[in-house]
Amino acid sequence: MTSLSIGLLGAGRIGKVHAAAIAGTANARLVAVADAFPEPAREVAEQYGATVRTIDEIMMADDVDAVFITTPTDVHADLIEQAARAGKAIFCEKPIDLSVQRVRDCLEVVADTGAALMVGFNRRFDPNFRAVRAQIDAGAIGDVEMVTIVSRDPGPPPLSYMERSGGLFRDMTIHDFDMARFLLGEEPVSVTAVGSVLVDPAIADVPDVDSAAITLVTATGKIAQISNSRRATYGYDQRVEVHGSAGVARAENLHESTVEVGGEHGFTRAPLMNFFIERYMPAYRDEVATFVRGVLDGTPLSPTGKAGLRALVLAEAAARSHAERRTVDISEV
Amino acid sequence: MTSLSIGLLGAGRIGKVHAAAIAGTANARLVAVADAFPEPAREVAEQYGATVRTIDEIMMADDVDAVFITTPTDVHADLIEQAARAGKAIFCEKPIDLSVQRVRDCLEVVADTGAALMVGFNRRFDPNFRAVRAQIDAGAIGDVEMVTIVSRDPGPPPLSYMERSGGLFRDMTIHDFDMARFLLGEEPVSVTAVGSVLVDPAIADVPDVDSAAITLVTATGKIAQISNSRRATYGYDQRVEVHGSAGVARAENLHESTVEVGGEHGFTRAPLMNFFIERYMPAYRDEVATFVRGVLDGTPLSPTGKAGLRALVLAEAAARSHAERRTVDISEV
Amino acid sequence: MTSLSIGLLGAGRIGKVHAAAIAGTANARLVAVADAFPEPAREVAEQYGATVRTIDEIMMADDVDAVFITTPTDVHADLIEQAARAGKAIFCEKPIDLSVQRVRDCLEVVADTGAALMVGFNRRFDPNFRAVRAQIDAGAIGDVEMVTIVSRDPGPPPLSYMERSGGLFRDMTIHDFDMARFLLGEEPVSVTAVGSVLVDPAIADVPDVDSAAITLVTATGKIAQISNSRRATYGYDQRVEVHGSAGVARAENLHESTVEVGGEHGFTRAPLMNFFIERYMPAYRDEVATFVRGVLDGTPLSPTGKAGLRALVLAEAAARSHAERRTVDISEV
Amino acid sequence: MTSLSIGLLGAGRIGKVHAAAIAGTANARLVAVADAFPEPAREVAEQYGATVRTIDEIMMADDVDAVFITTPTDVHADLIEQAARAGKAIFCEKPIDLSVQRVRDCLEVVADTGAALMVGFNRRFDPNFRAVRAQIDAGAIGDVEMVTIVSRDPGPPPLSYMERSGGLFRDMTIHDFDMARFLLGEEPVSVTAVGSVLVDPAIADVPDVDSAAITLVTATGKIAQISNSRRATYGYDQRVEVHGSAGVARAENLHESTVEVGGEHGFTRAPLMNFFIERYMPAYRDEVATFVRGVLDGTPLSPTGKAGLRALVLAEAAARSHAERRTVDISEV
Repeated sequence: MTSLSIGLLGAGRIGKVHAAAIAGTANARLVAVADAFPEPAREVAEQYGATVRTIDEIMMADDVDAVFITTPTDVHADLIEQAARAGKAIFCEKPIDLSVQRVRDCLEVVADTGAALMVGFNRRFDPNFRAVRAQIDAGAIGDVEMVTIVSRDPGPPPLSYMERSGGLFRDMTIHDFDMARFLLGEEPVSVTAVGSVLVDPAIADVPDVDSAAITLVTATGKIAQISNSRRATYGYDQRVEVHGSAGVARAENLHESTVEVGGEHGFTRAPLMNFFIERYMPAYRDEVATFVRGVLDGTPLSPTGKAGLRALVLAEAAARSHAERRTVDISEV
Repeated sequence: MTSLSIGLLGAGRIGKVHAAAIAGTANARLVAVADAFPEPAREVAEQYGATVRTIDEIMMADDVDAVFITTPTDVHADLIEQAARAGKAIFCEKPIDLSVQRVRDCLEVVADTGAALMVGFNRRFDPNFRAVRAQIDAGAIGDVEMVTIVSRDPGPPPLSYMERSGGLFRDMTIHDFDMARFLLGEEPVSVTAVGSVLVDPAIADVPDVDSAAITLVTATGKIAQISNSRRATYGYDQRVEVHGSAGVARAENLHESTVEVGGEHGFTRAPLMNFFIERYMPAYRDEVATFVRGVLDGTPLSPTGKAGLRALVLAEAAARSHAERRTVDISEV
Repeated sequence: MTSLSIGLLGAGRIGKVHAAAIAGTANARLVAVADAFPEPAREVAEQYGATVRTIDEIMMADDVDAVFITTPTDVHADLIEQAARAGKAIFCEKPIDLSVQRVRDCLEVVADTGAALMVGFNRRFDPNFRAVRAQIDAGAIGDVEMVTIVSRDPGPPPLSYMERSGGLFRDMTIHDFDMARFLLGEEPVSVTAVGSVLVDPAIADVPDVDSAAITLVTATGKIAQISNSRRATYGYDQRVEVHGSAGVARAENLHESTVEVGGEHGFTRAPLMNFFIERYMPAYRDEVATFVRGVLDGTPLSPTGKAGLRALVLAEAAARSHAERRTVDISEV
Repeated sequence: MTSLSIGLLGAGRIGKVHAAAIAGTANARLVAVADAFPEPAREVAEQYGATVRTIDEIMMADDVDAVFITTPTDVHADLIEQAARAGKAIFCEKPIDLSVQRVRDCLEVVADTGAALMVGFNRRFDPNFRAVRAQIDAGAIGDVEMVTIVSRDPGPPPLSYMERSGGLFRDMTIHDFDMARFLLGEEPVSVTAVGSVLVDPAIADVPDVDSAAITLVTATGKIAQISNSRRATYGYDQRVEVHGSAGVARAENLHESTVEVGGEHGFTRAPLMNFFIERYMPAYRDEVATFVRGVLDGTPLSPTGKAGLRALVLAEAAARSHAERRTVDISEV
């Protein structure tokens, strides 16, 4: 195979991001689109010269090599299993499912069929975070000791979304759990989490929290600290820092421009890039390119389904730690 | 017209940059490519679904609305005139010509035919420099008083290129002259320039200089200072700063990432984006989109041919100032 | 009283810092010095025109208005009580004692005598941290929600010191507990701490930890996260950040200079100010000036003895949380 | 001699700065103060334990080893000559005189008497600018090629001051001329200057300019560019940058703190240190310490009287270049 023909399952906001990324990727072509609603499917199909089809048609199609699963979360696992059995390469947005057991079952099907699966932890492909990891791999900071992740959204999602999201730890922190694993280079063995409702009292009734501090520890004692908030008036706050035995590496936020204006009251830099799609667009492009290249070359895909499972297990442990006010061992989950 | 069909004249490095930008622009399509060499023309045509044609064929073609002139400089003016007479909208890379008189003649033809012409001063479209200009327009720094432009290339071009380039002031500083006009908001009336050979003694034999300091003054006394070098080991150094009566605005360099690594010897940030195409790709994209939108809407194009002329006149005056060791009035040129 | 005559109890490293600060403070004069060793006492006395005396002589002296207690920790509480009974104003280096109960008893004596007591949490007087607090007080970031403190030493102290230090939480984090209280504006009600030995395995035998992550939560759910390490190769790492409902304020590290050097491998800034005395010298000066002004004006001194107690209680809770792997309520201590 | 006894000639603002610096310098003592007005002389004498005397008394005094000349400029040269003949070591604030010829005559007297003379170019002692120079000396940026100096005052001095100042080039740029020499490491051989009145039209009537751009070139073609303004609303703007064959070194401005506040409208850093005494206090301290150490050790003092002369010659050439609109060779002055 020298070119990958792709079917898109789900033409919503994140589906469109991937469709655009596919269009900009060498040796990849969007050939089919499915969505529960006809209009977005038609729109995407038209823009990229693909055809609208049903999910079943795409799964059975000979001219579709790979599927991108960008539907709502609750059908992710079913679609992965269906695609795995149909022999398609699979890209699935995080999370695979909100239930740890369901994810485990799904990954067994994937393993049995030998399907190629990649999970959409887009942040691993951010050029800045990748550069931090590259510095670690190059030995620039010695042994990793402490990881600090600040991850704050510009504003909270609607309450209706939060009710179905599985809670902050599974919905939002899951990205940070994956980033912590990516940077620690070792599996966390315990999780200690506290959460508060500081942004909007209505979130307490969901019930959920909107602010959280999470601490992970690995078997050799390496530590990761995560700071989450559902609302940062100053923009989409996304930073990582790794303290090691020989130095420190950190990735700062991205501003809208490099411009600074000085006046009587100080020097003002541009606000942060505020929207996750704009902020992470280079990451989405690289993520798709990595998937396409991996499938065409037959090399292992990463982040794997197991990475998706591990991040979810950490989320589960965090939720339990918060509820029970104690450190939770991963082995408990 | 709701979509613009474009013919590309010149499929070299900068032609390819524009072809890619056209492909990413809404309502624009590359339909034809011409080049003195068959291979690059074929390559570009294939990649974007266009056909290879001769320049004359493109000029006469009914299915071509606009041409992009990305040939070597010495035929720019002839092609502009031919395209103007053929009724095409025209985008031409800078400079229009190295001779002030030839540019004046060419612009007369453009004026007589009423052709739409835009000159490729890409840096005006850089998001950071545009943001500086936007701050000026918004009144954030009061009246503009002093503009500082630092513009240094990673390394010098081949001597063979420099011999035909018209010299540093016409080849390299011309971008900075346009930027100074863009930021001053007033026409410079005098130029004082000094140049040195510091990078490579062979450049003295071209003859040319490789390092220069230029000062422009407008009728009301506003001042612009430009610093040029043909070689910056630390990367493509592109900064502007505007000091005004109520503040200052500056655009800093772009680094390859936001990552900083700390260790015993200090804190090291990533190198600068080093290649002009990578550095200015967002600018090239916006430049093409602006051209396409302007032609489709029938609104005036900018930077105009006159902007091309004015920058060249400043270059001419700078060369004379350097040679005669005195301030040169623009009215002399 | 228009000028304060001061006796210094302890002429070691930190005693000398305070002696220099006293010399630079308006309306303050060092008149007497005591130390277990004659040489340092003589040296300080000579440099500042004071006399060497015994502690008892200083306590009884009519020409001494105030004492600075900069002895080893184990006699702090005794000296505070003695000075309080002798009617002296008291400045005492942190901590008052390593035992919560001893501190409580000591503060009762202070309360009974009505003595003026200030505890040496120097970081509150750092111009940068004070500026963060001033931004909070001015409402610039709305309600405080999450405090992040990074506090890492250049290198670990000798093992012999660590053995008597009370452990990382009481010796090192105690500064950060005070800073967290200073920035949160509310009392923490629970502490969750994890610690590791990552820097030097010998520290495990003390026994102590050298790396730690601590999370504090207040009654209304505000959160503080602290990151500690006994060794940062890149210098004395001292940063705070406060995320609020309307913005964020942060104080960055202090570098040895503002100089940045660019070359082929990137842009390198100067290392951090590496020694705590150099880093915090402006803070020590302001601390002493604040004490002198407060005593002369008869206004309340701050940080109070209670602040010293509260920070120690948090340290005690952190040690317990780490040992028992659970969140510890302050009320338990 | 193991300690230097100093007489201060002139107890105005800058005299007080030096008195404070002397008080903080090891092995130096202020013993006498003279001023045309009794009150400031008395005030300084009292604060530092010196006596008020006449200038002649100080010159004749056996207990005075060195004098600091901090009077108005017009008597600098006379006092230098008197002190040289009296065998005192001499520190003189810049400039020695506004007349090049008068400076030459004065330096001859200094040479004839063998007096030790240091001229007060305080900026050479700024830790940041010194660090830039140290990087050059260490070879970190290869051969120096282009120096860029931005030097802007917060606001213009009174017109009455400007009338006697000798004009912007002699009064303000003179510091930058010295800095350019300090960083270039080679003598400038030509000067090209333009000046404008942009800040206050009344300055044109002085007559003087308030904004200027100056270009210096050395014999080997190294270039320095200076940007001056009498008014920067954003604070005292003092930056240098040196571009070399192997890299670049730059010293950024000093802000009041390291604090940055983020909110909806961007991220705002603290204003610049705004007052020259506060901004350059560490430089003043080091300047005095360097003078004291040099006199006590009998090592050559720097900046020398010749440095004072050279900076003035550059100022003279700049004034002429501005007036005659041409490059002026130093040999003309």
